[in-house]
Amino acid sequence: MISRNDCLKRDTLDPLAPLRDLFDLPQGVIYLDGNSLGARPKTALARAQAVIAHEWGKDLIRSWNSAGWFDLPKRLGNRLAPLLGAHAEEVVVTDTTSVNLFKALAAALRMQAQDPARHERRVIVTERSNFPTDIYMAQGLSSWLARGYQVRLVDTVDELAGAIDGHTAVALLTHVNYRTGHQHDMAALSRHAHDQGALIVWDLAHSAGAVPLDLHRDGADLAVGCTYKYLNGGPGAPAFIWVPQRHQGAFRQPLSGWWGHAAPFAMQPDFAPADGIARALCGTQPIVSLALVESGLEIFEQTSMQAIRAKSLVLTDLFIELVESRCAGHPLALVTPRPHARRGSHVSFTHPHGYAVMQALIARGVIGDYREPAIMRFGFTPLYTSFADVWDAVDILKQILDQQAYDIDARRDAVT
Amino acid sequence: MISRNDCLKRDTLDPLAPLRDLFDLPQGVIYLDGNSLGARPKTALARAQAVIAHEWGKDLIRSWNSAGWFDLPKRLGNRLAPLLGAHAEEVVVTDTTSVNLFKALAAALRMQAQDPARHERRVIVTERSNFPTDIYMAQGLSSWLARGYQVRLVDTVDELAGAIDGHTAVALLTHVNYRTGHQHDMAALSRHAHDQGALIVWDLAHSAGAVPLDLHRDGADLAVGCTYKYLNGGPGAPAFIWVPQRHQGAFRQPLSGWWGHAAPFAMQPDFAPADGIARALCGTQPIVSLALVESGLEIFEQTSMQAIRAKSLVLTDLFIELVESRCAGHPLALVTPRPHARRGSHVSFTHPHGYAVMQALIARGVIGDYREPAIMRFGFTPLYTSFADVWDAVDILKQILDQQAYDIDARRDAVT
Repeated sequence: MISRNDCLKRDTLDPLAPLRDLFDLPQGVIYLDGNSLGARPKTALARAQAVIAHEWGKDLIRSWNSAGWFDLPKRLGNRLAPLLGAHAEEVVVTDTTSVNLFKALAAALRMQAQDPARHERRVIVTERSNFPTDIYMAQGLSSWLARGYQVRLVDTVDELAGAIDGHTAVALLTHVNYRTGHQHDMAALSRHAHDQGALIVWDLAHSAGAVPLDLHRDGADLAVGCTYKYLNGGPGAPAFIWVPQRHQGAFRQPLSGWWGHAAPFAMQPDFAPADGIARALCGTQPIVSLALVESGLEIFEQTSMQAIRAKSLVLTDLFIELVESRCAGHPLALVTPRPHARRGSHVSFTHPHGYAVMQALIARGVIGDYREPAIMRFGFTPLYTSFADVWDAVDILKQILDQQAYDIDARRDAVT
Repeated sequence: MISRNDCLKRDTLDPLAPLRDLFDLPQGVIYLDGNSLGARPKTALARAQAVIAHEWGKDLIRSWNSAGWFDLPKRLGNRLAPLLGAHAEEVVVTDTTSVNLFKALAAALRMQAQDPARHERRVIVTERSNFPTDIYMAQGLSSWLARGYQVRLVDTVDELAGAIDGHTAVALLTHVNYRTGHQHDMAALSRHAHDQGALIVWDLAHSAGAVPLDLHRDGADLAVGCTYKYLNGGPGAPAFIWVPQRHQGAFRQPLSGWWGHAAPFAMQPDFAPADGIARALCGTQPIVSLALVESGLEIFEQTSMQAIRAKSLVLTDLFIELVESRCAGHPLALVTPRPHARRGSHVSFTHPHGYAVMQALIARGVIGDYREPAIMRFGFTPLYTSFADVWDAVDILKQILDQQAYDIDARRDAVT
């Protein structure tokens, strides 16, 4: 049986351990919620000061050119691309995940509608367990489009491939499930979708910076994702959208704002989409929040997604093993798949009083989060989570459960 | 003829003069581009530090509740509302102006489509001289909707009322024109639109914080606008959308993300819009940029839009008078209307070498901007523009013109 000393020893041998110093983590906290809001890179504060005091305060309007504000969505996209298995000039950091999903889904539906062989397809396939905003955006878009699409919600992972069939226009899937931590087989599902004549849009909110991605190899058509979780870009930082070069010519989206125009400063009264990835842009971006994304991305250049994934699997294996051994006898049930290939970088357990137990954990400095129904989520971020953190978190969980030190009448506040 | 000393005297008598100290303005610069990017409120830096170091860095995920991040779009909207003549719970600060325009236009078209008497209307009326993104978003939306709308571009202000007729579903107008500084008569055009059975959406990008607004009194149906110009919210800061209580029940928009859901944390698989203004929200917002909007808004609480407007008119009158008298003989032509009621808070002159002259002005520290074709724009921000600034700017303009000290082959870089 592994001991706390064993965990400390693993930390001394961990090649990623020095990266923890690049983050500002509060004292007395074990932060296991980087899957919801990543921790703060130390450089973010100086970067914000430079943008606010110098670029905005001193150079003012000139910074759109001199500080490269106008190019920031593309520059950050190019820096993010290697983490996705994307090429340069295929990614922009912009808008919100929801808005980018709307663009991607609209563009994919239009590509299908313009293909005579696929013109009649009217079904968008997604999962009932998908993050709700993905479903809502699909519902919103389909109910407003002329052609009357239907959003089909699939109940289980096993039924998913069967549901993507010859009637499917587009499959819209989240790669790693926000609740369960289940990771889809992107290559197999993309291949299946293509075999059926469907296009496939991937939401990488819980994947980017957490698991190695190779969007080209795995046959994705379009993808969107989030920078404020594992990429540590800051609260609500702008999201990203990936359009591979092979689809850029056909990519058209309804949010046709001036940042996506071929000549944004010519001020012409007709929209003409920019060449390349810029056509996925819409309006002026929130520069301070956007600039901070770079502080998160630059840390990834000190390691590799393979090294991050290797540590993530050891961390999540260790957490599962410790919870199941040390908290045995308590009504905890693992929700996250045990096979490595089917797991992201967070682990979820149900407990009948999951909400109350999570509140007790947070009160003792172990910050995870709660998702209906009854699910406690624990995120593991190899850039700053240590093996001792895992030990200590389970130790506190065990104390809370053994002592029933949680308030089963705890009020459920808004949590994200 | 007014002298520089007269201008200095006006500054000593100006009740708004002390507010200039609330901004960080660079030495040696006369900043006449607050209509494009407002100057930096001094408090913005400390606010950003608090959000980044403390709220993000220390409280991490808990700040969604403890720091009120989740309520920020509404809290800022309530603080902005008085400047618009809006009521509490009618405004949210969120997304970009382009995206909010898409929401507002989609919602207005849907309201009309659901009215049996107006169901057949298929025309969106706007101006060819409108800010291009407004036209592009209307084109984008209408080309994707089932019902096949037509965007009618009106060529002159005089033709506008005639163009809003019994076929018009929605008129989409920018209150103060970004190029000319022309201010529409919101009350008269709104009344005319309603008489014709049309709805009217107002873009307040160059109005909010620049001219007194009374959206309820003037009969606007929906409105959007920008916080990074006269409201000094920071580069690319999130925009706003106004939905009056009388339209909130019927307001539905296609960007139906989880922040606009009636129960965003219940994680239900069907979209149900929130009651009230929250249904205009979509996805997670860029918190650092959003928080800085408050630093701009709080300054307005130290004065009134009436005081700001009074000074704005004196500043713009003075600028026009000085340019026309001191630069007489040069091929400058005033584009901005002379009548006070038809003017915003910037003044535009054409010059055959407008781009080159503006570059020379900027090189000497007078920061205005240039818009095709041949238009030099000068923005006057009563919170921080002094009468001596106006004198000095015209003095430098006169020197440049008299000495032909501009490079007519200057390369046209991207400018915003």
